[in-house]
Amino acid sequence: MTEAMNRQVILSDRPTGIPAPEHFELREAPMAEPGEGQFLVRNIYLSVDPAMRGWVSAVANYAEPVAIGAVMRSIAVGEVVASRHGDYAVGDLVCGLFGWQEYAISDGGDVWFKHDPAMAPMSTALGILGINGLTAYFGLLDVGQPQAGETVMVSTAAGAVGSAVGQIARIQGCRTVGLTGSDDKVARCRDEFGYDVAINYKTADLDAAIAEACPDGIDVYFDNTAGAISDAVYRQLAVGARCAVCGTASLSSWEPWPEGPRLERHILVKRARIQGFLLFDYTDRFAEARGQLAAWLAEGKLVYREDVLDGLEAAPGAIERLYRGENQGKLLIRVGDEPGS
Amino acid sequence: MTEAMNRQVILSDRPTGIPAPEHFELREAPMAEPGEGQFLVRNIYLSVDPAMRGWVSAVANYAEPVAIGAVMRSIAVGEVVASRHGDYAVGDLVCGLFGWQEYAISDGGDVWFKHDPAMAPMSTALGILGINGLTAYFGLLDVGQPQAGETVMVSTAAGAVGSAVGQIARIQGCRTVGLTGSDDKVARCRDEFGYDVAINYKTADLDAAIAEACPDGIDVYFDNTAGAISDAVYRQLAVGARCAVCGTASLSSWEPWPEGPRLERHILVKRARIQGFLLFDYTDRFAEARGQLAAWLAEGKLVYREDVLDGLEAAPGAIERLYRGENQGKLLIRVGDEPGS
Repeated sequence: MTEAMNRQVILSDRPTGIPAPEHFELREAPMAEPGEGQFLVRNIYLSVDPAMRGWVSAVANYAEPVAIGAVMRSIAVGEVVASRHGDYAVGDLVCGLFGWQEYAISDGGDVWFKHDPAMAPMSTALGILGINGLTAYFGLLDVGQPQAGETVMVSTAAGAVGSAVGQIARIQGCRTVGLTGSDDKVARCRDEFGYDVAINYKTADLDAAIAEACPDGIDVYFDNTAGAISDAVYRQLAVGARCAVCGTASLSSWEPWPEGPRLERHILVKRARIQGFLLFDYTDRFAEARGQLAAWLAEGKLVYREDVLDGLEAAPGAIERLYRGENQGKLLIRVGDEPGS
Repeated sequence: MTEAMNRQVILSDRPTGIPAPEHFELREAPMAEPGEGQFLVRNIYLSVDPAMRGWVSAVANYAEPVAIGAVMRSIAVGEVVASRHGDYAVGDLVCGLFGWQEYAISDGGDVWFKHDPAMAPMSTALGILGINGLTAYFGLLDVGQPQAGETVMVSTAAGAVGSAVGQIARIQGCRTVGLTGSDDKVARCRDEFGYDVAINYKTADLDAAIAEACPDGIDVYFDNTAGAISDAVYRQLAVGARCAVCGTASLSSWEPWPEGPRLERHILVKRARIQGFLLFDYTDRFAEARGQLAAWLAEGKLVYREDVLDGLEAAPGAIERLYRGENQGKLLIRVGDEPGS
């Protein structure tokens, strides 16, 4: 009988910009057994997120960088298949930082939440009911504080976070305007995600298009890009605008540190607020937010798209694919069968 | 008997940068008489404020630009000397937008508040109990929200606003660090205004000096300068920092629009908030703030400096003087005798 093995993707080299296949290696490690207070998760879906660029950066960030030779850090959702932990039973579906691998040992410290399959399909635990939906929920509602009738602008409007932001803003009674990078995505913003206006920032005269779409200025800006796109948005803020900084996807490197038009005059004249936030500061409100998001899903007020790659071999190229904007919805990697399938 | 005349300073040319003597002219106009619902103010002190640069700029700002040929807009404090208005009696001291002139007709719409001389000398209505103290009070407490034990950084730390910010932060139990432009002012920051540390940004290695003064980072930044000084501050924000943008004194022009290091990564990684504010949004709380500021003055917890120029002839050069940083405290122009003097 051959020993059971665990296939893993490890970080083999440290990128300075976007992580690409050459920065990773596949390897097989012996399957670990859970010790006392631990359990074994069989990963089913792995998540691919913009934040992973920061996780492998040598520059200090929210967390320690992933070490060279270590399993790539990743959110994943899977099934508990063996347990010596009182809070986790075989069959539980769990979402957490289980890494780019087929099996993970956990003591519960890296678990974000358990997923109830009656709520929605388990893949949503990585998307609309996971990091993306939660980021949209807290960033828009807590930081952006939209009021009915206001104009909400979203960059990467068709993305996993942006599409949720636009829809939640619409649920709040706001006028929604999305910025996205292709005509296909413009159509999807309008037809699937209900944006009042969607603009292709790559082909439009951005200043003129924003002026036309937002005659009274922008009250709330949910920013996933920074850079030239945001420069254009900041020029047309309304008085009292709130900007939630969620990501800087349009800036491929901070070495050297990029320059741009100074923001202070906009901030001052418009009495605007620009604020960053981190999802992990809201962990004690995840249950509240997931319940609300699931209710909106059930009511048909919230829709989402997923783009599922098959097999662990797809992982090394997935972050680059995300930054190229090629994915059609939340980018996931399926590495195992769903329970009961 | 000669007709009574009113000496005025009018805007004769529109500056692109800092207003200088060549942009103004003195003229004499016939003295106006208050009509029904109006009163006549004899100006005693005129205020010189950084905001006046914006008031004469052709670029849209908070208010319509001062017209060429019109009396220069200015805050002033004076005595009601004739009245046909039920709320204003002869002898009342009033502070408002009475302009750079000896006498002003008002219907009350340009009045900020009445000043009670038992509270403090009437010149304070233009400084510590007026625009400067009120700006410090609301910008620091409402926008910056300092907590005891936090580190508060102030740019133009020895100025009329900055010195009040530093002292109010100290009253809140904060550690205070001031940035200022001369060794004299550094000494004044420490000796008069109670800063824990004061730094001459013109001679110090600013990054190193801030790192030494703020080992745990900067929790609250009250920004009067923008530009390179703020760039250095933003590099050392603490997690959860709040920045109140009050002015952009270090940037002499916004045509062409100045560039600088992008802020989004600091905002994101530090979950920081950068927010502008306008004093006029707080008019309904002026009485509360003036009462608190006067109480701190009476208790000796708050001190201020004034730099008084004599005569209306000093007005045309006063804004330039302010931007050169030559004034030793709140810059005022005395154009009349105080009542009873």
